[in-house]
Amino acid sequence: MTISVAVSGASGYAGGEVLRLLSNHPNVTIGAITAHSNAGQRLGELAPHLHSLSERILVETTVEQLRGHDVVFLALPHGASAEIAAKLPDDTLVIDAGADHRLESAEAWEKFYGSPHAGSWPYGLPELPGARAKLVGAKRIAVPGCYPTSVQLALVPGFAANLLEPDDVVVVAASGTSGAGKSAKVNLIGSEVMGSMNPYGVGGSHRHTPEMEQGLSNAAGVPVTISFTPTLAPMPRGILTTATAKVKPGVDEATLRAAWTAAYKDEPFVHMLPEGQWPATSSVMGSNHAQVQLAFDAHANRVIVSTVIDNLTKGTAGGAVQSMNIALGLSETAGLAFEGVAP
Amino acid sequence: MTISVAVSGASGYAGGEVLRLLSNHPNVTIGAITAHSNAGQRLGELAPHLHSLSERILVETTVEQLRGHDVVFLALPHGASAEIAAKLPDDTLVIDAGADHRLESAEAWEKFYGSPHAGSWPYGLPELPGARAKLVGAKRIAVPGCYPTSVQLALVPGFAANLLEPDDVVVVAASGTSGAGKSAKVNLIGSEVMGSMNPYGVGGSHRHTPEMEQGLSNAAGVPVTISFTPTLAPMPRGILTTATAKVKPGVDEATLRAAWTAAYKDEPFVHMLPEGQWPATSSVMGSNHAQVQLAFDAHANRVIVSTVIDNLTKGTAGGAVQSMNIALGLSETAGLAFEGVAP
Amino acid sequence: MTISVAVSGASGYAGGEVLRLLSNHPNVTIGAITAHSNAGQRLGELAPHLHSLSERILVETTVEQLRGHDVVFLALPHGASAEIAAKLPDDTLVIDAGADHRLESAEAWEKFYGSPHAGSWPYGLPELPGARAKLVGAKRIAVPGCYPTSVQLALVPGFAANLLEPDDVVVVAASGTSGAGKSAKVNLIGSEVMGSMNPYGVGGSHRHTPEMEQGLSNAAGVPVTISFTPTLAPMPRGILTTATAKVKPGVDEATLRAAWTAAYKDEPFVHMLPEGQWPATSSVMGSNHAQVQLAFDAHANRVIVSTVIDNLTKGTAGGAVQSMNIALGLSETAGLAFEGVAP
Amino acid sequence: MTISVAVSGASGYAGGEVLRLLSNHPNVTIGAITAHSNAGQRLGELAPHLHSLSERILVETTVEQLRGHDVVFLALPHGASAEIAAKLPDDTLVIDAGADHRLESAEAWEKFYGSPHAGSWPYGLPELPGARAKLVGAKRIAVPGCYPTSVQLALVPGFAANLLEPDDVVVVAASGTSGAGKSAKVNLIGSEVMGSMNPYGVGGSHRHTPEMEQGLSNAAGVPVTISFTPTLAPMPRGILTTATAKVKPGVDEATLRAAWTAAYKDEPFVHMLPEGQWPATSSVMGSNHAQVQLAFDAHANRVIVSTVIDNLTKGTAGGAVQSMNIALGLSETAGLAFEGVAP
Repeated sequence: MTISVAVSGASGYAGGEVLRLLSNHPNVTIGAITAHSNAGQRLGELAPHLHSLSERILVETTVEQLRGHDVVFLALPHGASAEIAAKLPDDTLVIDAGADHRLESAEAWEKFYGSPHAGSWPYGLPELPGARAKLVGAKRIAVPGCYPTSVQLALVPGFAANLLEPDDVVVVAASGTSGAGKSAKVNLIGSEVMGSMNPYGVGGSHRHTPEMEQGLSNAAGVPVTISFTPTLAPMPRGILTTATAKVKPGVDEATLRAAWTAAYKDEPFVHMLPEGQWPATSSVMGSNHAQVQLAFDAHANRVIVSTVIDNLTKGTAGGAVQSMNIALGLSETAGLAFEGVAP
Repeated sequence: MTISVAVSGASGYAGGEVLRLLSNHPNVTIGAITAHSNAGQRLGELAPHLHSLSERILVETTVEQLRGHDVVFLALPHGASAEIAAKLPDDTLVIDAGADHRLESAEAWEKFYGSPHAGSWPYGLPELPGARAKLVGAKRIAVPGCYPTSVQLALVPGFAANLLEPDDVVVVAASGTSGAGKSAKVNLIGSEVMGSMNPYGVGGSHRHTPEMEQGLSNAAGVPVTISFTPTLAPMPRGILTTATAKVKPGVDEATLRAAWTAAYKDEPFVHMLPEGQWPATSSVMGSNHAQVQLAFDAHANRVIVSTVIDNLTKGTAGGAVQSMNIALGLSETAGLAFEGVAP
Repeated sequence: MTISVAVSGASGYAGGEVLRLLSNHPNVTIGAITAHSNAGQRLGELAPHLHSLSERILVETTVEQLRGHDVVFLALPHGASAEIAAKLPDDTLVIDAGADHRLESAEAWEKFYGSPHAGSWPYGLPELPGARAKLVGAKRIAVPGCYPTSVQLALVPGFAANLLEPDDVVVVAASGTSGAGKSAKVNLIGSEVMGSMNPYGVGGSHRHTPEMEQGLSNAAGVPVTISFTPTLAPMPRGILTTATAKVKPGVDEATLRAAWTAAYKDEPFVHMLPEGQWPATSSVMGSNHAQVQLAFDAHANRVIVSTVIDNLTKGTAGGAVQSMNIALGLSETAGLAFEGVAP
Repeated sequence: MTISVAVSGASGYAGGEVLRLLSNHPNVTIGAITAHSNAGQRLGELAPHLHSLSERILVETTVEQLRGHDVVFLALPHGASAEIAAKLPDDTLVIDAGADHRLESAEAWEKFYGSPHAGSWPYGLPELPGARAKLVGAKRIAVPGCYPTSVQLALVPGFAANLLEPDDVVVVAASGTSGAGKSAKVNLIGSEVMGSMNPYGVGGSHRHTPEMEQGLSNAAGVPVTISFTPTLAPMPRGILTTATAKVKPGVDEATLRAAWTAAYKDEPFVHMLPEGQWPATSSVMGSNHAQVQLAFDAHANRVIVSTVIDNLTKGTAGGAVQSMNIALGLSETAGLAFEGVAP
């Protein structure tokens, strides 16, 4: 089975990562590669690591260019993807790496994005309870944000098993700089970020917060409130998430470990590590894998869960390809069965 | 006024940083420089950045070598410093960068270190309420740990002003690799740490936890419980601490900001940043400065406080020299009035 | 066609990289995974990025463990591989990632290694003139060193085309820290290497020098003398080589460009970049690709050639797998047809 | 003695580094701090590491703002400084960190900069033969470029002692990213530069080449030709220069070492390391120190010299302050007698 795929926003990091993965996917032929300001350039100028596609010329991101493919990946600024998706045929599989279709709540969308809600699509995090069923045969898929992927993988097993208090979740995450995109900003230049860490979007203002709470609340069956603080780390890729929650009365470490272990024991990409071994972002670099470990702090009555993902792979493009595989009935690991690059 | 100073443990990062600061201190002459396994070597081989001391030869760390100086800095493994300090004259100012004399509670010491408690000394974090008075004229000073320095600077103003709930503090901190010391371990080599982040000592097992709770509890007047997770970041120096606590009923952001601003408005080294500006570790790199910023997350009813320090300077050697200055009646900023190195 | 492969020295970086590549090779089943001091451990403890092999237990590196596979990869300290290879069956394909069988000259071997010469094997750099023919059907292959791979790819086209003077070659190369191996040394810890660069093995003492001169001399048909200076760069992987040589009378940039372009136009892994585009190590990170670019400095009458490779992939394990593919008559790109990981 | 100083271009890295050094200079009061697009902003927003100056407001870079100070530092784009300097009083010490007044040859200037030559000023590299005498009492000083500083410190002793051939110098240097300035360019963002190295300005096109040849030719008494290749390294600061030249007949390592040792034995900031110890950029980070080491490669008949400096300190702002000290008859080390920050 061969699928024709178009990729928009190919000059950005998310689009480039989709191309990196698809270029090695056994069932895919890459059709149109589109961009906006970079249309007309050789891909080799913009993404010199993609040798097999280096002579391809980027074309303008238009419905005409994207139409006629079996699958269209949208890696566009929020707002743009909803507009284009609306004009693509219903039987084209449209996978949106942007935010437009992630939130179920129009109210939450409007509060955090200040624009009309475009509606929500099946959510591309197959490891969530019930998520795979909604992805099979789907023609529209919303790819989760990178932080929400790591946070939901960290805490959903505990909420789904009714082990955690919903009203006191604290998450602090460190992201590599590619999470901020391929944009020319002084605060992102290497001289500023190397050897330094800083927080940003502190105090609940980060747009990923409602998406995290949506996933955790769905798993808990009650509203979950989260305090989320993202930080910028001096590395190109990777997210280390430290997620903590109060545990319900009588819950001990064995109960916690059993719940997480059960949740991920059959997952091809999410790995609960052996007790005592903690994750490192380098272990998943460039791969679609996630690593999870937890500890119960009896002193503070909290579970502390650490997860690592590659923000561009499992956190964006890898999750998108994994979802495509499920939607189309391919092997879920097709094109993704490779390891992280370490050291 | 000229003070003769001996520095032990000079081949490690803490001892080397003490020497870096003292080499530029207007009132200090550097006497004995001691080490253990590196005794007999040129300092220039071990710390090639210390050009003014490069020809100095390290001598064995013994009471005989350290005796006869006005001030002795101990940068030794815990256990070792208590033993040596006990043999130094009472009128010698002994400044211990190790852990031996930080904890007031013998029980906490024995639980986390498994050895008899050596007693507690005046605590070298002058910015704590009442701390300076205890340092003036002191002959024994315990230098705080690097994480405890950053966490106490983050939260003490709120507890001292009775604005925070004591039973639900969550702290996640990222430290540069020098915090792990100058030791040949595979998990610390550059190939392993560059481009990667990982947690460690998760679940309340980190030895700095009781020290943090001691300082916060003293400020609060009631016992404070903390969930602390340290992470290793790919940078040589710096600690970014994200500290969060539930606020008491009726407390708003203005009240919080006023308390922190008042606490630090006259401090030479601790800076509450203008509203909206967040700290970065690069801003304090190599300096004794600390930067603090906070936000109130009404949604989660939590204050989130970010602090940055250089773990080797304000977090260790700088705090030690600042405390020495106070103890001896020198200008508190003597030898420390320089800026961070950025970019 | 399925090939059984054994990998020795799997706890090191070279062995780990061989496993990373083989785990995704369509024609390979991985048999014995051996180590020395780490025998008995789970691979997942030592190489947590290799999720598909995490439960495999390392066994002792012995002839018994390695015997009975179609292919044996040796990633051992020099000296060790010759001894083991001598005891393996003649019809087993033995691929030595160590130095023992790279040098044709016993004299050069003894001068730089101070031990008896074990003889030379077909050389695993297929891009060299005539190299592929010697690899087809070979049962013993010597994998080139990482620096020699980059230097020969940089200069061989010019020497083979008789465009360069043989007596004044200057090469300066920067290598990521993984080139120094997975060894616990203070000078390799992250605190020492991050944010810093330093030279080492200066003055012709580096053991890779005779290997480089061997390859360049064979291409030139006359002895080539090289001044080689390696430097350590603050990155885990990658080698950037800057190679310069005087050009022969009448040679201009067009002639030079034509020679390099012709040499690599049909190579699947070595890419002469479009004029004006210079290589970056990030473009080949984790991949078997190499990028090459040159400029003619008429003012100094020198050609300056820049090449980038991943020292662990094309520089070691990738070159080894590529050579295995050729030796066994598989597609040369089998298991290697993926792109670099960037950013 | 107290000197009033104005600093222009304070929002860039060079200007910021001048302020960092002057803020700790015992004889200086900082007057006007000027910028162009950032005029009107708090310095604390642009350079948050400069705590002692954080409330200062940047003013527009105009002659009116700069006039009336004893010393004016110009850290402006080339072209701009010549224009402003021409309008400042003759008895004001003007120190230009830009390129406008470095080259003695109008022809070389016009070839590399394509604009009329503004003339040359006393050259702020005191370690060059005869340079100090020209700086004493000078009212106009041209600060050397960062690469030329490192290259001249590497090779001038050999040319001054007539030990090196003038026609075959090869230099490859690696610079931290701050050398590219504080500018928002995609190729400079952290995601692109971390973990990567790349060459640029290859083939003699770098504007620093004529400045290097000027200094080496003056020392040699004959024209020196250089092949220079700069590379970008993943670190914020520091330059590692590898400089090689053919030695004249009969010259051996002892002769070479004696010449370099003699040249720097009385220098406060340039250090010839003990034989066998090689420099690292981390050893001079944030300081005005330079480290030098050499080896004689008899095989290639070349001397290889390694030098390290901090491009922003000895390479720009530190050299500027050192030159100011000499011009004004202050201690040459005033405000510069501090060590590098390592690790």
